[in-house]
Amino acid sequence: MRNILLNLAYDGTNYSGWQIQPNGVTIEEKLMEAFRRMDGSKVKIIGSGRTDARVHARGQRANVHLNSSVPTERLPFALNAKLPPDIVVTGAREVPLDFHARYDALGKTYRYRLYTGPFPDPIGRNYQYHVKEKLEMEGLREALEILKGTHDFRGFMASGSSVKTTTRTIEHVEIRWRDGGTIDVYISANGFLYNMVRIIIGSMVDVAKGKITRAQLEEALKNQKRALAGHTAPPQGLFLEEVRYKL
Amino acid sequence: MRNILLNLAYDGTNYSGWQIQPNGVTIEEKLMEAFRRMDGSKVKIIGSGRTDARVHARGQRANVHLNSSVPTERLPFALNAKLPPDIVVTGAREVPLDFHARYDALGKTYRYRLYTGPFPDPIGRNYQYHVKEKLEMEGLREALEILKGTHDFRGFMASGSSVKTTTRTIEHVEIRWRDGGTIDVYISANGFLYNMVRIIIGSMVDVAKGKITRAQLEEALKNQKRALAGHTAPPQGLFLEEVRYKL
Repeated sequence: MRNILLNLAYDGTNYSGWQIQPNGVTIEEKLMEAFRRMDGSKVKIIGSGRTDARVHARGQRANVHLNSSVPTERLPFALNAKLPPDIVVTGAREVPLDFHARYDALGKTYRYRLYTGPFPDPIGRNYQYHVKEKLEMEGLREALEILKGTHDFRGFMASGSSVKTTTRTIEHVEIRWRDGGTIDVYISANGFLYNMVRIIIGSMVDVAKGKITRAQLEEALKNQKRALAGHTAPPQGLFLEEVRYKL
Repeated sequence: MRNILLNLAYDGTNYSGWQIQPNGVTIEEKLMEAFRRMDGSKVKIIGSGRTDARVHARGQRANVHLNSSVPTERLPFALNAKLPPDIVVTGAREVPLDFHARYDALGKTYRYRLYTGPFPDPIGRNYQYHVKEKLEMEGLREALEILKGTHDFRGFMASGSSVKTTTRTIEHVEIRWRDGGTIDVYISANGFLYNMVRIIIGSMVDVAKGKITRAQLEEALKNQKRALAGHTAPPQGLFLEEVRYKL
């Protein structure tokens, strides 16, 4: 019995998200199926966390306790042969038996891609959030600066979520302006609440458009009211880039 | 009656190419349909040239002789409302009645995207050519240098094509290394033969892999034998970026 930590990349466009559910095809389900089709292995998959429908990943992590004769370094190839082309195992390593991909995660990095221009870009339509208006650069930067650091992010969480604590630390942020109206926002934190990145991005866009003021954003953070923060940006711009572990 | 020059962007993944054909859905057909659905306009569409199935465009051009009350500057919005999300009209301007999008084209720029890495990238799978092997940068550069300038490119044309002359001038080339194994090759010429860009890219990859030598590539150019050049790179990495006119 080995405990294997996998690195996964996927295009979330055609999936109902990571986690297995009764209606809709999910990435976890396709991965479980790939193990079974590989050599009959029945595994329980422990992901670092869920991703929503249409959200993508290049650095999702998951561990599985595996009874199989396939050597660890061959696992990506053996699994990819059984996976659809929009899900790829890009790495596998053996970890201690008590390692847990969710509990042991120290932090994550998400990227969110914005595209600004008068017309949508058909080529990137499933991988970015099209904003017609010009976004004021300073607005985007200042909104991110306000949110950096340790705060109670209850106001930046989808209502109805239940977690023990809503305090999180945003450790690192970065905005990269790409060619032709594309903007990538990187956010690293020790953990994220449900929809936290998408509400942060929606708020940044609202500030950059001048729809909400910096003072209102600070208020949303202080008063922890979801209604004071910005809108929830759509899922297709979101990419899980990295999950960090002590390993 | 106005002659309108359109700028078009499209994701070619789900189309059998630009040109109307009996089997398979094409971009030209969808555009024609959009004019009809807009206000009953029946138009003949003159594209700058065809693109193959799965090939993309951000700068395709086409002109139409139009009898319609929709103002020119409103046309993109009116047409986009009737087009599927993977085809977008990004510009429209009135041009002289005798303007012809194909005959009047002075040159075009294509981009071809390569992705190198041990595993395919599921997110870019429809927009790049995955090459597992490391590509020697110097090989890519030198192959392009050999092909630059005015040559008879008969050896770099899909067999079976018929054109008056097979001499073309490659005016400008550029290779841009992007983050994480992505390479964009830009090629501008006064015209392209059928499959010319894809055979050039396949040849560059073969040279960079060490599969064919620079001497063999020079031989292919001089002797004009398709068999001496490299393989035809797949369509999904190809993007029509620009068509140039005197206008």
